[in-house]
Amino acid sequence: MPAYPPAFQALVEELASLPGVGSKTAQRLAFHLLKAGAERAASFSSAVAGLHQKVRTCPRCSNLCEGELCGICGDSSRDTGLLCVVEEPQDLAALERTGEYKGLYHLLLGSLSPLSGVGPEDLKVRSLLERLGTEKIREVILATNTDVEGEATALYLLRLIKPAGFKVSRLAMGMPMGGDLEYLDDVTLARALQGRREL
Amino acid sequence: MPAYPPAFQALVEELASLPGVGSKTAQRLAFHLLKAGAERAASFSSAVAGLHQKVRTCPRCSNLCEGELCGICGDSSRDTGLLCVVEEPQDLAALERTGEYKGLYHLLLGSLSPLSGVGPEDLKVRSLLERLGTEKIREVILATNTDVEGEATALYLLRLIKPAGFKVSRLAMGMPMGGDLEYLDDVTLARALQGRREL
Repeated sequence: MPAYPPAFQALVEELASLPGVGSKTAQRLAFHLLKAGAERAASFSSAVAGLHQKVRTCPRCSNLCEGELCGICGDSSRDTGLLCVVEEPQDLAALERTGEYKGLYHLLLGSLSPLSGVGPEDLKVRSLLERLGTEKIREVILATNTDVEGEATALYLLRLIKPAGFKVSRLAMGMPMGGDLEYLDDVTLARALQGRREL
Repeated sequence: MPAYPPAFQALVEELASLPGVGSKTAQRLAFHLLKAGAERAASFSSAVAGLHQKVRTCPRCSNLCEGELCGICGDSSRDTGLLCVVEEPQDLAALERTGEYKGLYHLLLGSLSPLSGVGPEDLKVRSLLERLGTEKIREVILATNTDVEGEATALYLLRLIKPAGFKVSRLAMGMPMGGDLEYLDDVTLARALQGRREL
């Protein structure tokens, strides 16, 4: 017979269905929520419930948003002439953490991957082209990942956008901070050489 | 500015407050719940909410339960003369998984720990003594953990129960399955020697 009551077991199973959470961890988390008290569990429950009730996709840039537009599209202090194209909301968050970028974003919500059957029509490419046609964009920064899919997506977008006369750039590749030449992979090192800066 | 909308950020913070979940993992889990769809998130949310609404402590043995008594106390096929004393519901679940034990349980909900200020009055000791006084118990099996606190708790209970004439036993200590003598700690090996069985 199962040793835990059904409501407890149900929570363990929900937790165990999360990525990277096994059945032992799920049990530990469920016991934590039980011990944390009804109030903490209620606030956790309503945070999960609120996710799909409140969070939607920004109609302009496809970022996560709650209101009419996302926080960045709705921020009048941003430079509307700069458009940074990223794959996912996490990538946008990483760029925002640097505090270096003051322009707008456009999220593709994925990258080209013929093997997984993801083509341009599955990404937010059409809305990107619409924005380039209607907004006054000076420069498009391609900030897709530097894996095979991200590189292919950047190349695809470059060929699509460049002929229309836009300035298109890509994030610099090179040595990471704290990097050691000895342990760096050959491609990164070659790119760092190619992109060397005169001091 | 925060890159994620408030409802998303709220969920990330709730997830990050779980033990062993850092902010990166919390973000990954929140994105997982976002992508998994509203239905999955709703079922997860209601499982968390149901935990404190439904699960309570069995008034007899302190196991988790949903009804009048827990599943084990309410099972008339169990041997009511055997009482196994464990620390936590997880320990009960581990014993139940073996399928070896058909008696009843009593959960202390902790172990004696003077350093953390946990004394007998903080554990379910009084209700254990009440059960020994009213139920027809033949044997009490002390199945607390074999760490310092668990051993001390077992010794404390032994001194409390044994004088009243009950048969009291403790789980055997010895080599674990698949164990290697070379790597076994001295205490376990000494206990395995002391507890050797004639074949």
